[in-house]
Amino acid sequence: MQRILSTELPAHVGTTVTIAGWVHRRRLLKSVAFLIVRDAAGLSQVVVTEPGPRAAIEALSEETVVEVTAEVTANAAAPAGVELTTPSVRVLSSAPPVPLPFELHRPALGAGLATQLDHAALALRHPTRATALRVAAAAAAGFRATLEAQRFVEIHTPKIVGTATESGATVFTLDYFGRPAYLAQSPQFYKQLMVGVFERVYEVGPVFRAEPHDTSRHLAQYTSLDAELGFVTDHRDVMAVLTTVVAGMTATVAERTGIAVPPVPSEIPAVHFSEALRIAGAPADEPDLAPAHERALGEWARREHGSDFVFVTGYPMAKRPFYTHPQPSDPRWSNSFDLLFRGLELTTGGQRLHRYEDYLAVAPDPGAIAGYLDGFKYGMPPHGGFAIGLERFVARLLEASNVREVTAFPRDLHRVTP
Amino acid sequence: MQRILSTELPAHVGTTVTIAGWVHRRRLLKSVAFLIVRDAAGLSQVVVTEPGPRAAIEALSEETVVEVTAEVTANAAAPAGVELTTPSVRVLSSAPPVPLPFELHRPALGAGLATQLDHAALALRHPTRATALRVAAAAAAGFRATLEAQRFVEIHTPKIVGTATESGATVFTLDYFGRPAYLAQSPQFYKQLMVGVFERVYEVGPVFRAEPHDTSRHLAQYTSLDAELGFVTDHRDVMAVLTTVVAGMTATVAERTGIAVPPVPSEIPAVHFSEALRIAGAPADEPDLAPAHERALGEWARREHGSDFVFVTGYPMAKRPFYTHPQPSDPRWSNSFDLLFRGLELTTGGQRLHRYEDYLAVAPDPGAIAGYLDGFKYGMPPHGGFAIGLERFVARLLEASNVREVTAFPRDLHRVTP
Repeated sequence: MQRILSTELPAHVGTTVTIAGWVHRRRLLKSVAFLIVRDAAGLSQVVVTEPGPRAAIEALSEETVVEVTAEVTANAAAPAGVELTTPSVRVLSSAPPVPLPFELHRPALGAGLATQLDHAALALRHPTRATALRVAAAAAAGFRATLEAQRFVEIHTPKIVGTATESGATVFTLDYFGRPAYLAQSPQFYKQLMVGVFERVYEVGPVFRAEPHDTSRHLAQYTSLDAELGFVTDHRDVMAVLTTVVAGMTATVAERTGIAVPPVPSEIPAVHFSEALRIAGAPADEPDLAPAHERALGEWARREHGSDFVFVTGYPMAKRPFYTHPQPSDPRWSNSFDLLFRGLELTTGGQRLHRYEDYLAVAPDPGAIAGYLDGFKYGMPPHGGFAIGLERFVARLLEASNVREVTAFPRDLHRVTP
Repeated sequence: MQRILSTELPAHVGTTVTIAGWVHRRRLLKSVAFLIVRDAAGLSQVVVTEPGPRAAIEALSEETVVEVTAEVTANAAAPAGVELTTPSVRVLSSAPPVPLPFELHRPALGAGLATQLDHAALALRHPTRATALRVAAAAAAGFRATLEAQRFVEIHTPKIVGTATESGATVFTLDYFGRPAYLAQSPQFYKQLMVGVFERVYEVGPVFRAEPHDTSRHLAQYTSLDAELGFVTDHRDVMAVLTTVVAGMTATVAERTGIAVPPVPSEIPAVHFSEALRIAGAPADEPDLAPAHERALGEWARREHGSDFVFVTGYPMAKRPFYTHPQPSDPRWSNSFDLLFRGLELTTGGQRLHRYEDYLAVAPDPGAIAGYLDGFKYGMPPHGGFAIGLERFVARLLEASNVREVTAFPRDLHRVTP
């Protein structure tokens, strides 16, 4: 018999159907037993009153995979108003009759994060953990769809690179057929070079950071949502695209998962770094924004503009990577920006240098990145771009306290399995 | 003035517009000069008759980035029936006045593959190379859209893994905070574990192979299109999904790029391995199909079924990875398949083992992959999946002789830059 999903049951009241999924919970009362079956779509309640089926259900352990053929019966008290009655239950795949390391049927996972991560294949089955990954999938889909509609082309770039350069992040070294190579900390150079081919490009892919930070925000591998576009006037063209992207991501998340998302203004408020320091009450000679300053800016944007988002532009050149384009009117500042979401940095971007001679003048070691700089010899338009860390975006949207809670199999200083 | 694209010119005849792009070619005749400007959408022909503008154009070098404001004039002899007249040309970004390593305006790139790869940022601007990457982008989009429509969920899995196991491919070793770790040769284990969460999952991401093969088909990094689905009866359910995926990929390629694609039958012909040997004229005890056998099968499928595609099923267990599910009726054979496209293997897939005890029985070193096998303790439904190498798919579709011709920045035994 054709299997249907838990969410399709209400349309089948009065008929006999087959569902399949995992034994999520059993409630063995005196006169009746309830078997809650979980599939990818949700939960189904199976009601057992006959002694034979009851004995079968008593023998099942949690997470056993079962197929249930039963009648769909309306019951206002049951989840979604339906339950399955007079069932026959077939075991598709048994789970060992030993206690699970933690229970999945409670609203919140009781186990600590380390235990969850040790048993990720089980923990991710919990609805809160699974939902976070669905939010990530929806956010990535929204990112792609928004950019495709603006004629961005998807690219796939090397994750193994010959030189350990760029923004100064610490990289992983590997043995590449007997010589050293490095894991790419970002597709920065490649997406810039591809502006020379397609004008507008994006990539969704893993990036790698060997930073020994043991924090709630850092991962050794994360998914970077990168975009880069040519023929810009300056960083404001990049900010305009980013604004549509963030709106597309939140809209797709809301549409697919029903999660509440903040509105994204069609024009996100923007303040120059020098003004941001004043708003945050910081000394005028501070070289960067501290977390407390970012929080103050978030509160200011909410109070003055009713916005959960605020752009800070013009960061000091001294604090930005060498490929950043200076602010033409005052080269102490840069044509770069951060986008803050609820007082936390969500993404960084800006206009890049586009002239070969400018790169030769500022690159710390032009010889080491000659293969990359060569691309700028051939004529590159003014361009810029941005990168969004997918896991950070999801963590902030869901207000998760640790990025590992929204990552399937996180990699960090201490963890390289499972 | 708002910039328009080369392909939008025919809609603007009689008006003054601005285009921008790269100096693709100049043709300096006696009484007239032609400037061909290339943008991401195509080519525009600019006609120069006045001495001042002509001198400006004579001074330009190829690949200089220019902005041209001019009148759109109908001319049946010009590309797309329009040309730009009485232009004013502004240089947005100059290219050094030295000869390029090869010319971009010829129908085929004259340079050898090694030279193209050395100057990839330039070579990829050639229409044939750029089109191949657009085909790859379209194929990936078709892959995702087809699976999303069948409720597959996108996942992102670790590319750094703790154990060098799985199908036996050679892996890259890296220094992971002072201890050895490995680059993932596939998301195989992770996509299987995620079937326990979402039932149906897919991933588009890089995979890494340290195989020292210096061939036209092997790369050290390629983009793998992976899918895995639970609650299957056997491998035939996986083949049915793969058939829709290949049809979705080719349809999206045709729609976006206009490239001619072969029809994908709604039911691709399938032959069992033992029958395939007979068709190919191979001895009945051959353990695998040689390239000549695959070609013979491709010819047979075309002749007997009018199909460019053919499935070979039931490969000997001895030749498949340990996680392959045996054929229940005869465990010498497996519930696996290859999909051949024009006589070449396009993708491999099959049903996997789903019981913990089965893995313990067959894994070469269960202890080394304990973190992965743990996931099977918790109840996994019968499942299977497949993986398509994106670059190989594109190479075969375009009949490129070397997979490097359709890869932006290939990585191989000899090449880790640019």
